[in-house]
Amino acid sequence: MTVLGPAAPRRLPYVAPLPLSAARLDPASLLGNWQELNAAATIPHCLENIRRTGVLENFSRLTEEPPPGKFEGFWFADSDLYKTLEAIGWEMGRSGTDQWAEVLSEVADLLERVQEPDGYLNTYVQGTAGKERFGHLEHSHELYCAGHLLQAAVALHRGGGDTRILAIARRVADLIVTVPLIDGHPEVETALIELYRETGEESYLSAAELQVERRGQRTLTGGFGPQYYQDHLPVREATEAIGHSVRQLYLAAGVTDLYLENGDESLLKAMEQLWDSAFGSKLYLTGGHGSRHRDEAYGDPYELPPDRAYAETCASIAALQWCWRMLLATGQARYAEEMERALFNAIAASMTTNGTAFFYSNPLQLRSGHDGSSEDAPSERLPWYACACCPPNLARLLASLHGYAATADGSGLQLHLLTAGTFSTDTLTAVVETGYPWDGDLVVTVSGHGELAIRVPSWATDATLEVTDAKVLVEPVPGAYVRVACEDGATVRLSLPMTPRLTRADERVDAVRGCVAIERGPLVYCVEQADLADDVLVEQLRLDASAPITEERTPDDLTPVRLRLGAVTRSLEAELYKAYQPDAQAGTAITVTAIPYHAWANRGPGAMRVWLPLN
Amino acid sequence: MTVLGPAAPRRLPYVAPLPLSAARLDPASLLGNWQELNAAATIPHCLENIRRTGVLENFSRLTEEPPPGKFEGFWFADSDLYKTLEAIGWEMGRSGTDQWAEVLSEVADLLERVQEPDGYLNTYVQGTAGKERFGHLEHSHELYCAGHLLQAAVALHRGGGDTRILAIARRVADLIVTVPLIDGHPEVETALIELYRETGEESYLSAAELQVERRGQRTLTGGFGPQYYQDHLPVREATEAIGHSVRQLYLAAGVTDLYLENGDESLLKAMEQLWDSAFGSKLYLTGGHGSRHRDEAYGDPYELPPDRAYAETCASIAALQWCWRMLLATGQARYAEEMERALFNAIAASMTTNGTAFFYSNPLQLRSGHDGSSEDAPSERLPWYACACCPPNLARLLASLHGYAATADGSGLQLHLLTAGTFSTDTLTAVVETGYPWDGDLVVTVSGHGELAIRVPSWATDATLEVTDAKVLVEPVPGAYVRVACEDGATVRLSLPMTPRLTRADERVDAVRGCVAIERGPLVYCVEQADLADDVLVEQLRLDASAPITEERTPDDLTPVRLRLGAVTRSLEAELYKAYQPDAQAGTAITVTAIPYHAWANRGPGAMRVWLPLN
Repeated sequence: MTVLGPAAPRRLPYVAPLPLSAARLDPASLLGNWQELNAAATIPHCLENIRRTGVLENFSRLTEEPPPGKFEGFWFADSDLYKTLEAIGWEMGRSGTDQWAEVLSEVADLLERVQEPDGYLNTYVQGTAGKERFGHLEHSHELYCAGHLLQAAVALHRGGGDTRILAIARRVADLIVTVPLIDGHPEVETALIELYRETGEESYLSAAELQVERRGQRTLTGGFGPQYYQDHLPVREATEAIGHSVRQLYLAAGVTDLYLENGDESLLKAMEQLWDSAFGSKLYLTGGHGSRHRDEAYGDPYELPPDRAYAETCASIAALQWCWRMLLATGQARYAEEMERALFNAIAASMTTNGTAFFYSNPLQLRSGHDGSSEDAPSERLPWYACACCPPNLARLLASLHGYAATADGSGLQLHLLTAGTFSTDTLTAVVETGYPWDGDLVVTVSGHGELAIRVPSWATDATLEVTDAKVLVEPVPGAYVRVACEDGATVRLSLPMTPRLTRADERVDAVRGCVAIERGPLVYCVEQADLADDVLVEQLRLDASAPITEERTPDDLTPVRLRLGAVTRSLEAELYKAYQPDAQAGTAITVTAIPYHAWANRGPGAMRVWLPLN
Repeated sequence: MTVLGPAAPRRLPYVAPLPLSAARLDPASLLGNWQELNAAATIPHCLENIRRTGVLENFSRLTEEPPPGKFEGFWFADSDLYKTLEAIGWEMGRSGTDQWAEVLSEVADLLERVQEPDGYLNTYVQGTAGKERFGHLEHSHELYCAGHLLQAAVALHRGGGDTRILAIARRVADLIVTVPLIDGHPEVETALIELYRETGEESYLSAAELQVERRGQRTLTGGFGPQYYQDHLPVREATEAIGHSVRQLYLAAGVTDLYLENGDESLLKAMEQLWDSAFGSKLYLTGGHGSRHRDEAYGDPYELPPDRAYAETCASIAALQWCWRMLLATGQARYAEEMERALFNAIAASMTTNGTAFFYSNPLQLRSGHDGSSEDAPSERLPWYACACCPPNLARLLASLHGYAATADGSGLQLHLLTAGTFSTDTLTAVVETGYPWDGDLVVTVSGHGELAIRVPSWATDATLEVTDAKVLVEPVPGAYVRVACEDGATVRLSLPMTPRLTRADERVDAVRGCVAIERGPLVYCVEQADLADDVLVEQLRLDASAPITEERTPDDLTPVRLRLGAVTRSLEAELYKAYQPDAQAGTAITVTAIPYHAWANRGPGAMRVWLPLN
């Protein structure tokens, strides 16, 4: 059975997604293991918390007349359920599980009973006295919530063969088609297009187009200002990433989806410019987006403080979804590389290894003594959040992650995420064996025949390629694809250098002046207080850039490769401001351990730095 | 006639304020000129805007039954009026003007008519259906507004001989005394103590004491968390500056006022520890407080980003008021030095030279292309704000500024703010002639006799002292007071070196690593885009710390002393992240102009930096 994955265009893109049924991640790989963990722990955890926090009760109370109690949680809490349903849909398609049949039936019953005859369905508006439907779309998230229902319905239909929730979603969509407004939180654009893809109903595509074209008319009012909602300029002119970062990135994914279906080149051009802004001057090294806690927003270009990075988990997920669509539209390696950066760093950091606690914000630095208790910047991952957008967003991403690894075109297969797994096109199947991201060797065994393309990351300056029963068409070049014409039984071995490297930022990134970060392969590393002696604070460290960095292999699954760095410790000073003296303070030489950024905060709260000052 | 100034303790402090009638700032001095400008422009501008924005109408509508229209503005808008009244009171005492007699009479009429029989007076609660008095004090600002009325009444009574508004304020205070709650926004503590000072009514002091002692019990709930309101710990334990910075600083001023009246040493000790936190690890070089836009709050220690400095004008004013009280309590020079830092930098920057446009937030850096239109961080000063706390706060400070310059004790006179002016104790009068802060020479002519103390700033490492008809008791030492025993007719000449100097921050201030700031005397300097060639961006500059800094005198009152710095310009780079190379990029040598920070943004919007990267 063919199971389509997320963002499967009807119009042939530059490269086409593989059906989910043609892609499998090795459960022993880092990404594949995540999918197993998601199925076993994260999805059940989401369901449990959705029930605990009253999200289901928000629906069931509306089946009584008058409804008992009151609406619980944030006014967009319906979306927590819908994102979890979407995760279940993809997971059913992935593993064939039917363990959630009962809850799906319960939910379908509820949705059918709560949905109004004209298709309207929103438990906050329906369940709160005095609320008028679509009366405050700048704030109400009604189309946002509806969008997540549409996406859930598509996933459940594709992955689980559901038709009941799909029918409910179609009735919702048939109503949305008639709404002459836009939502303060973009999301419905992509959702309408996915539903069009799944049903062939052209009016959903037209409605998505109207959502996109109406944006930028400054019709959304409210205290946040039009930039917050990306309603300050029409999408073809709004080429700076601005405002609430998740909204910006969901909108961009929707606009790119529209291009994929209607081929309007002016949309792609605008998205390429917007992408250059977001990824060229507003991106954290970890793949985080949004440098301001205030308004959860993008900052000015190069305003990238590591300590105050908001870097919401949802923003990195949204960025990945946008990059995937840009990749489908262009086939360019840079989009896949940014997916990888986000996945292995910001997104990987956002969840514990048991899959049931999460970061909402993903800073690149925590100071000694930091107390984040009054903000969404905790020092430890939390089991759930009052605004619970991130955990089920992770669940739906992870359940569909195999859909983002590879694509096909007329000539063959393209591997974008370097992971162990099996990927098939109509003419060939590639079995990838690798310990990536810990090891740089990929061995691909091909059955069938055709062209195999493998992405070479831009940091892989000395990659080497060996093939048997195959012809090299394009040699490895950083930031591009090697291309090999394979015969049946061919093997392709790509070796990427995993030498730890020092990375610096553009000098306009004031916040990390005089600092470097340590990377190895696609992984950003960090230094954590837990690895330092009791009398040395993270703040006292200065990296000795001339010292060699050595690797240390450990049996710890979370940090199988640690790095050992040469550094000095400096005394702390007494005065906040003092006369400048050109002579640097001397320090004491020590060796410190760095661990992958995504593994931080697993040994209790404590200080951490990605960017290390140079001695 | 003796006119008492702000914070005039009944119990004898370590050093005592001069009555306002015994202190006069030379109108030609920078500070004295501000007072003239305030009287001529800022106070009238405040009155005009208070009327325009409906603040007076909020009162007058309540004299009709039922009140027409609705309450306008923020729920604490009453305080805009009260702060302006306070400014008028001080200004009447300073200059003897009666130009505002009519408006004062109009306001007194309104307050009398609106005040309820039991003393309650708050136009938001009284004028909005369903609002319950003191029902949501975490949010409502009712005691905050009342506090500003009390302070206005004290100033009008001291400066203008008013008794009507004083009687209204006493009725308000008599009601507050019975309220068993605290306000989310501290302010009433200091206000009750000032009213106690003015009236001798002990119950006001007791009420202030209860306000202080009740704090820290976590009784204030709401989305912001207890730190925001400084309600997380009792004041004796809450020794880290935290939460909303204006609230923190007003609270600290109130606690210090309480110490001044009740002598409870445990309060002073806690305030000294809190002061070390605020001024030792959370202070901007300009005297700004509050590094986070989110919640307008203090950040972690050493979290001091120049671009995202919130540094609200009101916070620097509140800090000055607190430092003044700490100075009265201890006589220590460091408190006066921090008053000077704030006055000549953050506070001076917050107003245009015509006194009618204001910054709310005072960042130390603005990036090229910054668009602050969606935030309270504009690139230009604005005539007014929806939340109009800052302009009338400036007006009340400036009108009473002569009260903060000098003190007396049993032995003589202490000069804390180095400014031209005349200051008298019971036994001596000192006439100070100086072009400070532009010039470092102070010549003080003494009539009468007694001890004269003059503060030597901590940066004045080579100050020299010459006296005639006087005996030097303590030679000049940076960060302390010179002390001279004067005969009648004595002259004292203190010469402070005004050599421009480079200042660096503690290495834990990540945001300005590798940067220095330029200071000259008490003034922080900055480089502004307006002084650079069109093809050089502020972001391209690197300071050559080895090059001499030269002075340029100009006829411009705003920037009479500019500085010329050696620098290089560097090319901008193309990639956000790249491999670190130890070789620095070469640059082109140029000379750039620096102007005082407080003079920035007077030539249209543009980029600016206080902290300059070193080459």
